[in-house]
Amino acid sequence: VLAKLISFFDNECAGICVEPILVGVSGGPDSLCLLDVLVRAQKQVIVAHFNHQLRPEAEQEAEHVCKLAVKYGLLFVSESQDVQVFASENKFSVEEAARKLRYRFLFAQARNKGAQVIAVAHHADDQVETVLMHFLRGAGLSGLKGMAPVTHLPEFDPDIRLIRPLLRTWRRDIDEYCRENHLETVQDLSNLDLTYFRNRLRHSLIPEMETYNPGFKQALLRGAESLTGDFQLVNNAVDGFWKSTIIEIGKDYLTFNLDALQASNPAVLRNLFRRVATHLNSGVRDVNFEVVERVVRFIRDGYAVSTKVDFTDGLYVFGEGNQLIVANRYTNIPVLDWPQVRQTAKLEVGVPLFLDGNWSLLVEEKESIQDLAGITSNSDPFQAWMDADLICGNLQVRGRKDGDRFQPLGMSKGSIKVSDFFINEKLPSRRRKNWPLVSMGDEILWIPGYRSAHPYRLTGTTRRILHFELNKSRKV
Amino acid sequence: VLAKLISFFDNECAGICVEPILVGVSGGPDSLCLLDVLVRAQKQVIVAHFNHQLRPEAEQEAEHVCKLAVKYGLLFVSESQDVQVFASENKFSVEEAARKLRYRFLFAQARNKGAQVIAVAHHADDQVETVLMHFLRGAGLSGLKGMAPVTHLPEFDPDIRLIRPLLRTWRRDIDEYCRENHLETVQDLSNLDLTYFRNRLRHSLIPEMETYNPGFKQALLRGAESLTGDFQLVNNAVDGFWKSTIIEIGKDYLTFNLDALQASNPAVLRNLFRRVATHLNSGVRDVNFEVVERVVRFIRDGYAVSTKVDFTDGLYVFGEGNQLIVANRYTNIPVLDWPQVRQTAKLEVGVPLFLDGNWSLLVEEKESIQDLAGITSNSDPFQAWMDADLICGNLQVRGRKDGDRFQPLGMSKGSIKVSDFFINEKLPSRRRKNWPLVSMGDEILWIPGYRSAHPYRLTGTTRRILHFELNKSRKV
Repeated sequence: VLAKLISFFDNECAGICVEPILVGVSGGPDSLCLLDVLVRAQKQVIVAHFNHQLRPEAEQEAEHVCKLAVKYGLLFVSESQDVQVFASENKFSVEEAARKLRYRFLFAQARNKGAQVIAVAHHADDQVETVLMHFLRGAGLSGLKGMAPVTHLPEFDPDIRLIRPLLRTWRRDIDEYCRENHLETVQDLSNLDLTYFRNRLRHSLIPEMETYNPGFKQALLRGAESLTGDFQLVNNAVDGFWKSTIIEIGKDYLTFNLDALQASNPAVLRNLFRRVATHLNSGVRDVNFEVVERVVRFIRDGYAVSTKVDFTDGLYVFGEGNQLIVANRYTNIPVLDWPQVRQTAKLEVGVPLFLDGNWSLLVEEKESIQDLAGITSNSDPFQAWMDADLICGNLQVRGRKDGDRFQPLGMSKGSIKVSDFFINEKLPSRRRKNWPLVSMGDEILWIPGYRSAHPYRLTGTTRRILHFELNKSRKV
Repeated sequence: VLAKLISFFDNECAGICVEPILVGVSGGPDSLCLLDVLVRAQKQVIVAHFNHQLRPEAEQEAEHVCKLAVKYGLLFVSESQDVQVFASENKFSVEEAARKLRYRFLFAQARNKGAQVIAVAHHADDQVETVLMHFLRGAGLSGLKGMAPVTHLPEFDPDIRLIRPLLRTWRRDIDEYCRENHLETVQDLSNLDLTYFRNRLRHSLIPEMETYNPGFKQALLRGAESLTGDFQLVNNAVDGFWKSTIIEIGKDYLTFNLDALQASNPAVLRNLFRRVATHLNSGVRDVNFEVVERVVRFIRDGYAVSTKVDFTDGLYVFGEGNQLIVANRYTNIPVLDWPQVRQTAKLEVGVPLFLDGNWSLLVEEKESIQDLAGITSNSDPFQAWMDADLICGNLQVRGRKDGDRFQPLGMSKGSIKVSDFFINEKLPSRRRKNWPLVSMGDEILWIPGYRSAHPYRLTGTTRRILHFELNKSRKV
């Protein structure tokens, strides 16, 4: 056991195992063995015990671990919390609640004591059980690869590392080590009722599977190692893809290039969106296959404007123009980049009007009409030219009102609802309400970015021209 | 069932399912269902039956399938072979022998009848059993991803595709389809004794696993699908790596850039060498983790000259300079690029001597010794200058003899065995025997590419110079 541990520190842990190491010690054989071998390997350790208050003996066990730490001459930290209460308050399973509180405690103590590494006592049998549990629920690569010997748990701390030095050591060898070294162990937490499912795996299913392949456990451990490498390769591919498609990393949202997503294959998308979920919500441990598949289909099959699709843990996904946005349901995604008008404003010729998002609107009279050909072939939707003699009322800039209608340039008869026009033009729904409209009373003269109104167009009889331009200021 | 099949042809099979389709029909429910739905979907099919001669009823079954084909009005092809004999002759398991002969027959018939696609009746339960079998032996990604809906079996044919239209259809639905459509099925081959292991999985282990997760089979099917995508990503990464490290693709060997291999991570290497194995031996279906690991360690830890490591299926791996070579044990890897001498040849001043591999050796007398500084600082080991007055016998070019010794330039006393010199200089072992040595009787004057002999060096009293040069000809 000691030899394996030293090889672990020489290989997996090379260069990252800064001391002191905070060790989670329940008092069971696994953690006592871990503690003892760490001490023998002359590592500087801090003993951390978390009391889950799940059993009457819990108090005594905490005391036992404390005494042991004193005997080793090590720093001891502990905390006690009612896991049952925390579970029912937060609708977690008891196992999930225990895990959350325990890691929260360990990481807080590590920060507190300046430890950059936390060691926990998961061993090879734990690994086999973990992989098997993932297999039973049809997990993908990230589950089947099992626990990592060295990892981060970003939901608890972005920097402190979690290590599992015993991950290649079997329970049998740990028990033998404890006997040989007369370690006084208390009942292992893993034998509690709350891990009934795991216990059934351990005592029934795994022995059954060993009748098919006597080397099953060893084989599974090796398989997990091989999958860990493959997982890294997949992750590298996803890294590259993320970088090439991400447009904006917001606090609670991410924006991607939709064309690039649509051009990629489902396997990349599936992995990308698993990562998106953990990026936006570091507590997400695993994303259901169906949920990811729903998003992949949403991207692949295109989307109708204004539709969106539920993702996971309060996240949702929607498309906007050439962008795909993933956001928390309650996030206000900034609309700073769009021209938006919050309240009706008077527009005067020659006076720039400033709108939200650093946009400004300017109307000027142009005396000459020398370049009429150039004007009529105008292809910039953020400029418009109109017959000044037809503009005989006050100009306004305002958002859309119910019932607004519009006769777009080129439509010689009738009109269309502005709301329908927006839908036809695929203006993303979030932008519609405050999209600036240039109006004269109820009459819409121009929808910047789209079209001016047919009746006000330049004709052969036009003598004076009004030039409208909506500009994004370049100010920093 | 029909709907699923049509969706299969519209999606996975889009554009590749050229008709006619050759269908493997055993006569069991799976293959009869497949045949029936293909006919209903108006595909042009050819019925192919292979008689394994494993049971007394086999004859009758062949007849049954033949009659059925006639009833459908379809072309029928069949073959009969003694699987048991083939198995014992080749030391295959009966199951492996049956698979080989069956696929050999199907692909031969497909070629024969101009079919580019073969359909087989593997269904969702087969897939679950396959994945579980791989899981039990601790397989990596390529095993856990299960069977592909559309694939190639290059060991049987490089171009003809194998499709599995029922891969998402459960056995239950197939049986129901057969009942509803009154298909007269014979006993399924998969219920034979030879698949005892699989039957135990089916009737014992899988139901047991369903008590842990009632949706286990469905979950596993989804998981396999997700892993299939990840496998593609890994394969893409390996593709790129293969291209950037391969130096030569020989008939029975591959040469890679060793530095590039050493700089890469184990996961890429593992996958690369799995691919190397199937590239060199298309019959290899799976490479043992330990075997791959041995090669990865060999690369990572460097190698001593002349050592090699066993790979899989008669392949071995060895390093040579900056190259890593994987070859069949009985392959003669060409040595054309090296200077080699097959038999002793007389070397005359002024007359070029041609060696194997387009190398030529020329000795010339140089009258002037004006550029002595330039000569003595010579750093090209394929040129040598010697004191001509000391060369008083016949010059030869020959390979190494037992007992050859040599006093390299700079070694003022004593001598060293040529064989030890080669080892010190890390001359790859395969090149040593025929490496050209320039000698005068037993005296070694020059080892081209390495060092000339100390006693013949130029000194202050040298009056005449012999210039030796070994050149690679540029002839095409």
